[in-house]
Amino acid sequence: MDFYYAPGTVALATHISLEEAGAEYRAIPIDFSKGENNGKAFRKINPKGRVPALVMDEGILTETPAMLAYVAQTYPKANLAPLNNPFAFAQVQSFNSYLCSTLHVAHAHKMRGSRWADKEASFEDMRNKVPQTVAECYTYIEDHVFHGPYVVGETYTISDAYLFAVSGWMTIDGLDVNNFPKIKTHREMMLKRAAVQHVLESHPS
Amino acid sequence: MDFYYAPGTVALATHISLEEAGAEYRAIPIDFSKGENNGKAFRKINPKGRVPALVMDEGILTETPAMLAYVAQTYPKANLAPLNNPFAFAQVQSFNSYLCSTLHVAHAHKMRGSRWADKEASFEDMRNKVPQTVAECYTYIEDHVFHGPYVVGETYTISDAYLFAVSGWMTIDGLDVNNFPKIKTHREMMLKRAAVQHVLESHPS
Repeated sequence: MDFYYAPGTVALATHISLEEAGAEYRAIPIDFSKGENNGKAFRKINPKGRVPALVMDEGILTETPAMLAYVAQTYPKANLAPLNNPFAFAQVQSFNSYLCSTLHVAHAHKMRGSRWADKEASFEDMRNKVPQTVAECYTYIEDHVFHGPYVVGETYTISDAYLFAVSGWMTIDGLDVNNFPKIKTHREMMLKRAAVQHVLESHPS
Repeated sequence: MDFYYAPGTVALATHISLEEAGAEYRAIPIDFSKGENNGKAFRKINPKGRVPALVMDEGILTETPAMLAYVAQTYPKANLAPLNNPFAFAQVQSFNSYLCSTLHVAHAHKMRGSRWADKEASFEDMRNKVPQTVAECYTYIEDHVFHGPYVVGETYTISDAYLFAVSGWMTIDGLDVNNFPKIKTHREMMLKRAAVQHVLESHPS
């Protein structure tokens, strides 16, 4: 299994989950600064020019929520999601979908405004709003979703790896993690996990 | 099971899937024009103020990709997803995640620019780009993802309901469905399904 990633990206969530699962994989970095993500070779793997991507005998897989559920289902012994309870599994997936389509999208308006507009003034307007929109996401998570100590309660799941990956962007998004005590405690707990420590060696900050 | 929805929204995808599954549910419309989605009563159901939301004895479920997978898993006889093949299931989920976090988000920049910026000039810039960004999504889907006749090939899945729901926005996004022959054929095929016809009665266009 070949896992394509880049440091500092959301690929960290799947990277941690592969490691927690005990999966055998080869981690292959894609250098965005050299434009490798938009190069011909990588576009054959993922025409979207994004990471992460997982290349297996069966085919190619992209999109973090799908990859996380796949890892959990393929390595059930690692107990990374409540696979035998559709409602509990759906709650994990709901959280992951929110991170993907709301929190990550809010964050992306800081650096990737050109995805949705053309003018520099619009990009500046978007950048200025990021601290507010991303803070609203974390307030929603702390007030309505996060159970503690893990996202869904007493059990570690793929949602914890995902939250850890995106909450690593808080500082560059203009947020102070001290204003979000549940997220802060969660990050401290995650940093103690062997899988997280191992994977972070490939994601220098 | 109470299913909260609004006509013209992405709730259509889950609505169709509940119907295809043969689920027993009560469909409750939320009137956005009256601000019901942001009213106190509905905020208790979904603090995000969005539809769809599914209220069950077990709890409340939001986020379309999670709800679709839940419906497929809870009504396995309806065969709405390849539940026993993690890779095939992941492909369905990958498609759904792309619609949720890329296509739907591109579309949302037409009417919902205030989620990500503050100035009218930015909203106008965003609106102007929507025909391009949404077209890029459908080109990607037609060139790289859509197998035909259904999204994943020979078998109808939850991804078909999701694609049908979002492709209904093509005209208001400034696209001509005739430029996307696979999507056009898919829409025509979907309109012949009994479940789709039944649900559309609750989603007047």
